[in-house]
Amino acid sequence: MTYLIEEACEACRNLSAGVTEAELPSLLKELPDWRLESRDGEQQIERCYRFKNFAQAMAFTNDVAELAESENHHPAILTEWGKVTVTWWTHKIAGLHKNDFILAARTDQLYPD
Amino acid sequence: MTYLIEEACEACRNLSAGVTEAELPSLLKELPDWRLESRDGEQQIERCYRFKNFAQAMAFTNDVAELAESENHHPAILTEWGKVTVTWWTHKIAGLHKNDFILAARTDQLYPD
Repeated sequence: MTYLIEEACEACRNLSAGVTEAELPSLLKELPDWRLESRDGEQQIERCYRFKNFAQAMAFTNDVAELAESENHHPAILTEWGKVTVTWWTHKIAGLHKNDFILAARTDQLYPD
Repeated sequence: MTYLIEEACEACRNLSAGVTEAELPSLLKELPDWRLESRDGEQQIERCYRFKNFAQAMAFTNDVAELAESENHHPAILTEWGKVTVTWWTHKIAGLHKNDFILAARTDQLYPD
């Protein structure tokens, strides 16, 4: 078994296969703090991280942004006082690709808990 | 008449009066790109800013964060590829204070359009 955190993202083409319903449970099992969301018919995964103040939340936001730029795959990052909500999905396939789970695992690694 | 952009924020106490329904139209008139939203029964003002890429969006997010810290009043900032959505409201009064409109005007000034 290969853990998500050890995997590399692959180039995502328009026709690149997304994650199937059958694959979801085992991927989500590796990301216990992430929840599955559906917005405008597109599946996404989302986690809310807590911080002591706004400055710490912004520092985390910048760390996630750096990760996103390094992989050229970008989440939605909602920054508020004391919390940051990160949402990963793949626009090109209007849903979830394995890359989203790999980057969610890497996002967790950035969290200074 | 004093324009919002020229005004200073005032200390906001729990019982500090919010903006009244009668005051709303003239304040919103000064902020034509902002829309009034209601979430969980709390009024907010929100604007979506567009950018050419993720890096420019993040740079703006950091500028807004710096403004927020300088006034010790913090909006919700949603950063995505090519866009940033800023939402101002005042938690303490569960709605809109004049400070929110002043900071919305200052947020507009940060936008490099």
